[in-house]
Amino acid sequence: MTISKNTIKYLRSLRQKKFRQKYNNFVVEGDKMAKEIFSQKHIEIEGIYALESWITTNEKLLLAYRDKIFNISITELGQISSLNTPNQVFVVLKQPSNTPNYNQVKQNLSLYLDGIQDPGNMGTILRIADWFGIPQVFCSPDCVEVYNPKVIQSTMGAFLRVDTPVTTLSALRKALPDLVLYGATMTGENIFEKRVSATGVIVIGNEGQGISPENLSLVDQQIRIPQVDGSGMESLNAGVATGIICAVFRNV
Amino acid sequence: MTISKNTIKYLRSLRQKKFRQKYNNFVVEGDKMAKEIFSQKHIEIEGIYALESWITTNEKLLLAYRDKIFNISITELGQISSLNTPNQVFVVLKQPSNTPNYNQVKQNLSLYLDGIQDPGNMGTILRIADWFGIPQVFCSPDCVEVYNPKVIQSTMGAFLRVDTPVTTLSALRKALPDLVLYGATMTGENIFEKRVSATGVIVIGNEGQGISPENLSLVDQQIRIPQVDGSGMESLNAGVATGIICAVFRNV
Repeated sequence: MTISKNTIKYLRSLRQKKFRQKYNNFVVEGDKMAKEIFSQKHIEIEGIYALESWITTNEKLLLAYRDKIFNISITELGQISSLNTPNQVFVVLKQPSNTPNYNQVKQNLSLYLDGIQDPGNMGTILRIADWFGIPQVFCSPDCVEVYNPKVIQSTMGAFLRVDTPVTTLSALRKALPDLVLYGATMTGENIFEKRVSATGVIVIGNEGQGISPENLSLVDQQIRIPQVDGSGMESLNAGVATGIICAVFRNV
Repeated sequence: MTISKNTIKYLRSLRQKKFRQKYNNFVVEGDKMAKEIFSQKHIEIEGIYALESWITTNEKLLLAYRDKIFNISITELGQISSLNTPNQVFVVLKQPSNTPNYNQVKQNLSLYLDGIQDPGNMGTILRIADWFGIPQVFCSPDCVEVYNPKVIQSTMGAFLRVDTPVTTLSALRKALPDLVLYGATMTGENIFEKRVSATGVIVIGNEGQGISPENLSLVDQQIRIPQVDGSGMESLNAGVATGIICAVFRNV
């Protein structure tokens, strides 16, 4: 099947959050990420827009999606892609419901992101969660949207395995009053000297401002990554800090 | 003093590596980073190009640089800046000599970056080094240049406190045959279970390929960040991996 100019216009519109919300879908691009999607049963594919050569090469993989495949030209791919170097295939997926799973929170370590703004940081944090087996990364309503194409591409597929419910920290606290909320701050206890639990939620603050005062008041225990005396740094990158904290919670 | 069109052309040229190398200098932008430079004695300032309002506000700070200050308009700042939102001041600095300090290597933990390509990762790694008191980050000749404006801005000033000599790993090995070289790989020993020393060099590989075969053959001990069973991730971001390893070396 080929596509119309209106379809191109629609696919281009998915670069914008308001249209992703309107249609309740999002986009994944490139050969590697597309193939990873086909191996996941829980995610619903709306359409696969690909170069003919790619469709031919991947015929067997695509058997299950025959009525959802559209053959596009390199020019059309360039028009719809948000990559600098478009890569063969553009897949439209339905947004999963992403509701909080409270039972899972009780049994696992989770993250809560308080206003993470940078798409690269968001993607990096989802990779960290995937690496350390953290099934849910809660996002405050003012976080960068996970379905932003820059976030999705920088997750390297982690969005397929990590849930990202959007909720306030007070709603989470209300739903689970016994939950331990850890907050990463500059003045908390040294994580290498502290006893941490295998469950609980680690709250990570915004890149510039840290954890908001309202959310900080909900935190039970503040933790800190120790800094060497004399360092001139005000902070570590939010992704790096998250990585260090998750590594310590999982291994010390 | 005001500036000529030729000066604008010259300042614009410093966005390119070949001109930074020709003139042996580089650029730092913005109010915060500029002020941090003035507090450092060891770095040589060639010129300060700033809006009149900024010069007036910072008169006292600028006393020592009176013959190096140039008053520019907002339009001129826009022409020379590599920032999306130019911020009041543009400083040209002499590149420091950046020769390896072998005595310092013997007494400290160091990093060796093997082909780090992304400017943001390079900046993040220098922030990590600064945070954990690692005085030297050696760079392979094919790393992204530290004086690239994107790297400099993303270091948040760490380039002022961390030296970044460019050298091959074999030259470092030859100069210091007794040095322990640790290499971050996917199959090394779990860093949380391994005894590590307070000195030595941690080799961090390229974002896609890891450590090159030649350099891996020079590594004494391979180390790894443990991954949870069932994680779908092939790797962590290079900056995150560096952060976790440095945190463990400094604290476990």
